Amino acid sequence: MNAPRSGCPINLTLETLGDRWSLIVIRDLMFGNRRHFRELLTQSEERIASNILANRLMRLEEAGLVSRRDDPSHKQKVIYSLTEASIELVPLLAHKGGWGLRHTSASKELSIRAKILEDGGPKLWSEFMAELRHLHLGAPAPRRSVFTKLQSAYEAATATPKLRAKSE
Amino acid sequence: MNAPRSGCPINLTLETLGDRWSLIVIRDLMFGNRRHFRELLTQSEERIASNILANRLMRLEEAGLVSRRDDPSHKQKVIYSLTEASIELVPLLAHKGGWGLRHTSASKELSIRAKILEDGGPKLWSEFMAELRHLHLGAPAPRRSVFTKLQSAYEAATATPKLRAKSE
Repeated sequence: MNAPRSGCPINLTLETLGDRWSLIVIRDLMFGNRRHFRELLTQSEERIASNILANRLMRLEEAGLVSRRDDPSHKQKVIYSLTEASIELVPLLAHKGGWGLRHTSASKELSIRAKILEDGGPKLWSEFMAELRHLHLGAPAPRRSVFTKLQSAYEAATATPKLRAKSE
Repeated sequence: MNAPRSGCPINLTLETLGDRWSLIVIRDLMFGNRRHFRELLTQSEERIASNILANRLMRLEEAGLVSRRDDPSHKQKVIYSLTEASIELVPLLAHKGGWGLRHTSASKELSIRAKILEDGGPKLWSEFMAELRHLHLGAPAPRRSVFTKLQSAYEAATATPKLRAKSE
């Protein structure tokens, strides 16, 4: 980051986070657990370009919001992780999602996780942050998984509607 | 806004808000009550350029986050106001400020308002939003002013330290 334009904490947050692509990458690491370059690229709902993804991962690493290391299970691959600083963006992203639910034309299937996060409030955000510390920083696993809850709800919302059983 | 890149509420929020300058302008309308172009330009801590300010005000108006009308008290002037949608960004900006306090080298005098907002939590944010609806949308004035509280704390933090009285 160049010399910041002011010492205002809102400005510094905006300067540190960078543009919207940086937050899209953090969102996919956080809610999609996409940890490899290829997954972040090919599963991108917003069709992020490969050069933008590479650049934003590099900038996020420089800003201390992403760390990279060799993946112990795939020798050729690099695995990207959130850091404590980016894990603490959960409330901010939850509010962004909540605002988007009310003020933009968000699609139903991509809104279900934002709805759960908003309804769950600070208690759920803390639980999710504890789980992200497990997934990304090696902290102990929490008792229940918010990630699974969000993921199941998303999969249920995107699944083809099943035929109703006759007994219904 | 061009066709959005996805229906994800976080992505749509990022696309709607635009780049960091847009949020800087919203911050100054919100916390500084800077309602005229000249104030937004000349009092800018980040030294926003005049063409960027004009462009972001126009984009924010298109996105429904800022409204403009002739200022009844200054015939030649245009007054800018927040809208309900941008007033509902208070929790998001409060979280941005809170994150900045912990993870960036924010200056002490520019951090005092972020600290008060964070400590006050959702209750204080609601009160502040009620007051912004008064200042920007003509809603009735709330009983106590969060704006004054934030402003006084900021002024106290930026004031030259007073000489101690002998009795201290």
